[in-house]
Amino acid sequence: MQHHEVQSEDKILFFKKEYISEFVYGGIDGAITTFAVVAGAEGASLGIAVVIILGLANLIADGFSMSVGNFFSTKAQRDNFDRHRAREYWEVENLGEIEKDEIREIYAAKGFQGDLLNQVVEVITADKDVWVDTMMKEELQMTKDDKTPIKTASVTFISFILVGSIPLLAYIFAGLDSGIAGADLFLYSSILTGIALTIVGSLKSIVTERNILAGIAETLLLGGLAASLAYFVGDVLERVFR
Amino acid sequence: MQHHEVQSEDKILFFKKEYISEFVYGGIDGAITTFAVVAGAEGASLGIAVVIILGLANLIADGFSMSVGNFFSTKAQRDNFDRHRAREYWEVENLGEIEKDEIREIYAAKGFQGDLLNQVVEVITADKDVWVDTMMKEELQMTKDDKTPIKTASVTFISFILVGSIPLLAYIFAGLDSGIAGADLFLYSSILTGIALTIVGSLKSIVTERNILAGIAETLLLGGLAASLAYFVGDVLERVFR
Repeated sequence: MQHHEVQSEDKILFFKKEYISEFVYGGIDGAITTFAVVAGAEGASLGIAVVIILGLANLIADGFSMSVGNFFSTKAQRDNFDRHRAREYWEVENLGEIEKDEIREIYAAKGFQGDLLNQVVEVITADKDVWVDTMMKEELQMTKDDKTPIKTASVTFISFILVGSIPLLAYIFAGLDSGIAGADLFLYSSILTGIALTIVGSLKSIVTERNILAGIAETLLLGGLAASLAYFVGDVLERVFR
Repeated sequence: MQHHEVQSEDKILFFKKEYISEFVYGGIDGAITTFAVVAGAEGASLGIAVVIILGLANLIADGFSMSVGNFFSTKAQRDNFDRHRAREYWEVENLGEIEKDEIREIYAAKGFQGDLLNQVVEVITADKDVWVDTMMKEELQMTKDDKTPIKTASVTFISFILVGSIPLLAYIFAGLDSGIAGADLFLYSSILTGIALTIVGSLKSIVTERNILAGIAETLLLGGLAASLAYFVGDVLERVFR
């Protein structure tokens, strides 16, 4: 327990290290889906106004839906843990002998036997909290996650909007002051998105504790593939439907 | 362990119950983001062709990016578990006395003391697998998740594409045979999306084991909010940039 507390106090920049994974996956998804809208619109030759309108509409709606989805999913995991723990407390109180035998089986599997096994079972089952905690970890393989749904959802949303708006920057500046050619805009957007994905991809290696170049390469490859797909679909569909 | 095996064999329809959460969150995200594109394009009065082109481009690119993000995230969790376990094996072999003291502290906290505590520590540390397993669960609060990255990613992708294409159906039929008015299309799309979200929302209550009506209401509310946001942004931006 003490070790766990210490671990969750690790901070990088302004937020706890444990929320970096939400920042990374929210940011990657935001940049890639927004860049895909840009690439799809470019493939279909739809013009600056459409790129900005649908890019921003998608950014806000998708960021919102992803964060709320994240909220429900994190909450469902916590609720699931709480529900199973409540069930174990009920079983310990109402089916004590069966649950005691399960503790015996668990500790027999660890190598305990004879009188020592009996004594261990007595100590574990003497305290209901220890008893239930053992059932949760050993029978159900469940441990409590400290992350709160509102925090995982907030970090996801902020990161999605922040990183996800980068592919649109060139178009927004051009839209406000229309003196730049369309082809250049897509190039600027690609470069900006590449830089954003490189930064988030390198943060990813903090989460995964793996090689930083592998993290960047994976992220850029993923972004490039998604954008190519969107460009290709936009291009093909323009021919079909226009 | 036995209970865990039994639990993971539960099947609903064709896939294991443990992958329902991926199906639910992939489907909700797919339907909502695609409907948001439709609503955003409708708010900006962009026409059928643009809705279809950007809707499909977004569906494929976003479904791809969400699934690959899911793959990396599930894989990162497994890698994280494996890395910590490898570290614990190393510590057990190289810092045996320190790790033995940690086992002593863990069992002292459970209520063991004196000679019985010594015997328990001896049995736990006699088997390296049991020793490391105890450190993983008690010190790091980590248990192994059985889900494989390729399966969570596949279920997410299939569900995203399947449920996410529903908001576009009316437009695609109209695009192939253009004899339906624009206003009707958005109404048909809203109704179809509402039905899709109702079905997926009711599946969600299987995951969360909560009230089915609450699951449906939450999902519809979320979809409605995201679509309203996108419609509003599309509407406002059209006035600014056109």
